[in-house]
Amino acid sequence: MSKTKEFEERAKRYFGKEVTDRDRAIFEGGITLGAIYHQFVGTPISRDATVVSALEKAIEKTMSLQPYIERVEVKIDTSEMRQSSHPYDYGEVGGRNLSVKLVSKYGKARVYMKMFFVPELNYPLMFIEKIEEES
Amino acid sequence: MSKTKEFEERAKRYFGKEVTDRDRAIFEGGITLGAIYHQFVGTPISRDATVVSALEKAIEKTMSLQPYIERVEVKIDTSEMRQSSHPYDYGEVGGRNLSVKLVSKYGKARVYMKMFFVPELNYPLMFIEKIEEES
Amino acid sequence: MSKTKEFEERAKRYFGKEVTDRDRAIFEGGITLGAIYHQFVGTPISRDATVVSALEKAIEKTMSLQPYIERVEVKIDTSEMRQSSHPYDYGEVGGRNLSVKLVSKYGKARVYMKMFFVPELNYPLMFIEKIEEES
Amino acid sequence: MSKTKEFEERAKRYFGKEVTDRDRAIFEGGITLGAIYHQFVGTPISRDATVVSALEKAIEKTMSLQPYIERVEVKIDTSEMRQSSHPYDYGEVGGRNLSVKLVSKYGKARVYMKMFFVPELNYPLMFIEKIEEES
Repeated sequence: MSKTKEFEERAKRYFGKEVTDRDRAIFEGGITLGAIYHQFVGTPISRDATVVSALEKAIEKTMSLQPYIERVEVKIDTSEMRQSSHPYDYGEVGGRNLSVKLVSKYGKARVYMKMFFVPELNYPLMFIEKIEEES
Repeated sequence: MSKTKEFEERAKRYFGKEVTDRDRAIFEGGITLGAIYHQFVGTPISRDATVVSALEKAIEKTMSLQPYIERVEVKIDTSEMRQSSHPYDYGEVGGRNLSVKLVSKYGKARVYMKMFFVPELNYPLMFIEKIEEES
Repeated sequence: MSKTKEFEERAKRYFGKEVTDRDRAIFEGGITLGAIYHQFVGTPISRDATVVSALEKAIEKTMSLQPYIERVEVKIDTSEMRQSSHPYDYGEVGGRNLSVKLVSKYGKARVYMKMFFVPELNYPLMFIEKIEEES
Repeated sequence: MSKTKEFEERAKRYFGKEVTDRDRAIFEGGITLGAIYHQFVGTPISRDATVVSALEKAIEKTMSLQPYIERVEVKIDTSEMRQSSHPYDYGEVGGRNLSVKLVSKYGKARVYMKMFFVPELNYPLMFIEKIEEES
């Protein structure tokens, strides 16, 4: 048994026996969505595209390290911010401007999740868009 | 239909049709576990029990506000910290001292989750301990 | 020389020789103001007074551990939040609702700082209200 | 009077009259040092240079937006991390691996600050290296 396999087996023993691949993929994806929001909310941003794209890329690359995360795409919308004209004129990452697409995969299950601000709910909703299970 | 019910129905439309109560309970619990870690890691702590219990209580109360979270219990272990004797001698919340028990509930499913530092994995493992589904 | 004294002397060697007590008190207070904001922004809150006062107290107690911080007072204003009526109806700590009073002291200097949302600047301003120096 | 100038004058009124350019430069730099640490501590990292340099760059670019910050340089040391071999094998930003150089400037004062882990203090020390004042 490879070292990786062995390690994963050991971690698995902490989970209830009833926990399926589908449960795990959802669990790991949910953790990472919550992590992204609460790690990066409050980070300063401006309309400068090089600032925002550097941050988007950093979030994608660092949060893809989380266990069983296959893909992370981040978009920060600065369209409603004004152009900086004085030292206090910048914004910050928050529920209204942060969008995330995330794919988690565990064993035979792959889950597609999203987060974005939903005006009709007035809330940055995190949701499961699709669950795929190999038979 | 009550306003709450109506609101929840609207949010539900964003989720894939295949998403079950069990999936939702796992998803919402996972989000909150990830949120707790990444919100509070780095917070200063000391061996003073009034400091630590104030923080534990604040994490429990604030993170219980997250959707579909029924219970949150937090324990921060300061036993390996020294007694403060100089201005730089304090610690911070991190994967090695933070333990969380969490129960999420959505519709007919209730999920028990935990997070604590697992020495054999050298990792603060988040895991699903038990899933209950009413029939 | 006491252990505390010795330790502080060692830390002091890293600072430029031109750095005065006044400079240090300002520096340490500024660090803690920035720390408070970026540590706790994004934390869920509701109108429930027991939730908010638990969080205020936790911020005060933990952030008072930072070096040379004599006093921290935190107020989170939830007056503009609605009463919770559905699972997504809660708020979060942010620049618009967080107020902080902080006193730092180093040697002969004591500095009074504040942070609160200033409508005319549309910004959560951090500022130095008063500097006292013993002669 | 330009809009920027006007805005800065308005913000300045909140500060005590005794607050000098030097005080302000120190204050603003301290805020940003505290902000960097508490915003990014806990972010996942690995030995992969593209991950770490993306994060370093994002911290530099976003935190340079803070008022009166002239330059931010960030280095995250991953030399003591192992190469990833299983899903839980990654690290996170913390006091032991994060180094920051920062220059703040207000009016006639420019201040050079640093943060890095000091083994003899067993602490990620933030300090003022040099203060320059134009006469």
